[in-house]
Amino acid sequence: MDENILGIAAGVLTSISMIPQLIKVIKEKDAENLSWVMLSVLITGLSLWVWYGFLKDELPIIISNSFAVLVNIILLVCFFIFKKS
Amino acid sequence: MDENILGIAAGVLTSISMIPQLIKVIKEKDAENLSWVMLSVLITGLSLWVWYGFLKDELPIIISNSFAVLVNIILLVCFFIFKKS
Repeated sequence: MDENILGIAAGVLTSISMIPQLIKVIKEKDAENLSWVMLSVLITGLSLWVWYGFLKDELPIIISNSFAVLVNIILLVCFFIFKKS
Repeated sequence: MDENILGIAAGVLTSISMIPQLIKVIKEKDAENLSWVMLSVLITGLSLWVWYGFLKDELPIIISNSFAVLVNIILLVCFFIFKKS
């Protein structure tokens, strides 16, 4: 199989799997199950994957990890907006 | 920076970020926040990333996504063990 098509399929599936959590957190305004420490670790890791993708010049890695960075930054923002004070 | 070191650092961080959820689910025996559909989509996507890693011969992608497949298969098993009947 063409590597790029495989990478895009992989990226689409792993990206889709993140959406329900995002919708749930935004809809229920509940960030109780989120941890800002773990979100920060995840965002750092995903950003390094984007960097890796640029070094390797691999578009599927760049796009899918950039999307994941975006989703998790939104989750992090939600955490600070919705957390119980 | 060396691409492999960058990829390994990225993989370690994204892998670490999965551990707390796994521990929480196992400790609390609570899979209420999991969705078997989304876990299946995620496992399929991560497996395609492993395949992509093999095609591209990139060890950081193979290792970190294999670890993620393993974690999410355990979560899927937990879902079926712990779900309220």
